[in-house]
Amino acid sequence: MSSVSARTLDSNHSLTEGLRFELQAQCPETGARAGLLHTAHGTIETPVFMPVGTQGTVKGLTPAQLERDLDAKIILSNTYHLFLRPGHELIRDFGGLHEYIRWPRAILTDSGGFQVFSLSKIRKVTEQGVVFHSHLNGDKHLFTPESTVDVQRALGSDIMMVLDECLEYPPPSMKEVRQSMQRTIRWAGQAFRHYRHFDTSRQALFPIVQGAMSAELRVECAEKLLELNAPGYAIGGLSVGEPREESLAMTEITTPLLPREKPRYVMGVGKPEELIEYVARGVDMMDCVMPSRNARNGCLFTSEGKVIIKNSRYRDDRGALDPACSCYTCRNFSKSYLRHLFLAGEILFSVLGTLHNMRHYLDIMRRIRQSILLGEFPELLRTRRIATVVGTE
Amino acid sequence: MSSVSARTLDSNHSLTEGLRFELQAQCPETGARAGLLHTAHGTIETPVFMPVGTQGTVKGLTPAQLERDLDAKIILSNTYHLFLRPGHELIRDFGGLHEYIRWPRAILTDSGGFQVFSLSKIRKVTEQGVVFHSHLNGDKHLFTPESTVDVQRALGSDIMMVLDECLEYPPPSMKEVRQSMQRTIRWAGQAFRHYRHFDTSRQALFPIVQGAMSAELRVECAEKLLELNAPGYAIGGLSVGEPREESLAMTEITTPLLPREKPRYVMGVGKPEELIEYVARGVDMMDCVMPSRNARNGCLFTSEGKVIIKNSRYRDDRGALDPACSCYTCRNFSKSYLRHLFLAGEILFSVLGTLHNMRHYLDIMRRIRQSILLGEFPELLRTRRIATVVGTE
Repeated sequence: MSSVSARTLDSNHSLTEGLRFELQAQCPETGARAGLLHTAHGTIETPVFMPVGTQGTVKGLTPAQLERDLDAKIILSNTYHLFLRPGHELIRDFGGLHEYIRWPRAILTDSGGFQVFSLSKIRKVTEQGVVFHSHLNGDKHLFTPESTVDVQRALGSDIMMVLDECLEYPPPSMKEVRQSMQRTIRWAGQAFRHYRHFDTSRQALFPIVQGAMSAELRVECAEKLLELNAPGYAIGGLSVGEPREESLAMTEITTPLLPREKPRYVMGVGKPEELIEYVARGVDMMDCVMPSRNARNGCLFTSEGKVIIKNSRYRDDRGALDPACSCYTCRNFSKSYLRHLFLAGEILFSVLGTLHNMRHYLDIMRRIRQSILLGEFPELLRTRRIATVVGTE
Repeated sequence: MSSVSARTLDSNHSLTEGLRFELQAQCPETGARAGLLHTAHGTIETPVFMPVGTQGTVKGLTPAQLERDLDAKIILSNTYHLFLRPGHELIRDFGGLHEYIRWPRAILTDSGGFQVFSLSKIRKVTEQGVVFHSHLNGDKHLFTPESTVDVQRALGSDIMMVLDECLEYPPPSMKEVRQSMQRTIRWAGQAFRHYRHFDTSRQALFPIVQGAMSAELRVECAEKLLELNAPGYAIGGLSVGEPREESLAMTEITTPLLPREKPRYVMGVGKPEELIEYVARGVDMMDCVMPSRNARNGCLFTSEGKVIIKNSRYRDDRGALDPACSCYTCRNFSKSYLRHLFLAGEILFSVLGTLHNMRHYLDIMRRIRQSILLGEFPELLRTRRIATVVGTE
């Protein structure tokens, strides 16, 4: 408890609804911005990539590695998973998620909407909310716009997300997309009314722009959500299997409608080389399971492209995974040894691979941020030469 | 390479056949001894427990955690596994195992005999050696007394073991045990002749006393092996399923026959509370997969006994796993969170559990060693109160 409390934000930085966003630089030619996002658990330099810690742990990493080796300032956790196991009430009784998982810095929790739609085979959406069966034991549960705020209040995350409906790709009919989008707007309104009944000083709540792949519906949704005067805005329903051009197009349509002075979060993106594209379109926050999941599957991102480590060409490769990277893995181990660990199914492979991939993502964002602050972002975007770090396909 | 070289032993400590053993204290009432075992990769304080790194990694731990968090001075690796994958020649071409796995301290390798007998379903022992089929792909291989020395020379381990025949429990007829033991003696002779053809200055070779559960054969084997004037001696063929009393009895019969001025290693033992028993019988070195394997299975050793972490009693347990332990796991996390990680199948559980169990073993040995140096070993043995660390069944 003490280490968590000791690191909370100084009281002289006042937060409004859990946040204070400080815009530091804006690229005059693109939408790219650099800023500082102050939360009750520290300040986050944006644009930022948030490591995903689904079940209250970024798979394969200790909190010490996240903090000291990667200097991650914020991680993401999943309300759906933590609600089912170990349960939000238990976590609340421990003083919240930061204390339970011993992560002293910021946490964003998603509402669980995406997981309900992707993991639960049996679910039913009504105006009231979504009824679903646990993928763990089949138990039936109901998520409402209000209850997911309550669950996240129990978790004590710095940034909470509203319950939304996330549609599959390709999307259903325009009529159904519109109905779903309108429900997401109504749910967001209910969530915010509920949220504002309580002390909002240490937790922010973001609504989520939906509308599938329709520019018209995205615009309509964004404009409606602006009425909430939320502390920040997210763009959801992307990264569901659509072509990359569509995800970027939907982002590009939406960000100019969102308030300049508030953080913007695109959920679930992206590949290493896509991060800069989202930043160019005015996005401040991103998350994706790709760095950790791909690492565990033996796919490592480097400044020289993807390394599929099981490949026999690495059998006697003495070189570092990425000579341009200064992570623990690249400073110490050969590709040959990493391949051996992968083939032998050793835990250490997941640890070293995740450490590297995550560092690769965070370093890309650091370089992008630096280029914005130095006024060099257009050049970086044009050349795609993020130092030597962005992987090529 | 540089970090390995930088840490090799100062040249003013001369080694004979890879070792220099310095006896520091001997308990006047028991067989317990404390010493310093100098190797080409640093000095090991004995008695010592060696973490097992079967395939070139102590499962779940980075070399940095082994070195900084646990201060392990020596680990064990398996010739059988490394021979099959990635291959000893590849490791030799990398400059040896220390460099390949980036472990700058000492390494002991077993000969592979035990694994051939426990992992390979199809095998045939002849006077020449043992023919076996790889458990990975069925490929046929031959281990001879000479070839296993060659493989370990390629690995560059600080302490190598001779090829021996490890019998099952209950053992076969006395006649068969005697034949096997005599073959092990002949093999040891061949291994030593082969070993001494080469530069022995940086690698030791230990013969292994066999003889199943027969005191007579153990004595006969030990006396024969003394003729080798080996740099150290091991006791093998224990921990194969026999009652603890038998393992201790076989040890107690053997150690007084071994040279006082040389290190003694009992292979494959033991439970936390057994370590002191072996030390009392004059053993300096031990290894066992128990701390790491049990950790992965959710069985954690503490000063208050075993913790089966999945147990529902730990669901909301805010306490540290072991309040008497100062490892990273115990300093930071609750039993409730550890249980959550275990039930969720998270890698972090294996990491944190292994870190703790290994620390528990190493701390027990540190306390035992300290008691010998202070002349307090008999009291420790009588009360079994290794500070508050030895687990009770």
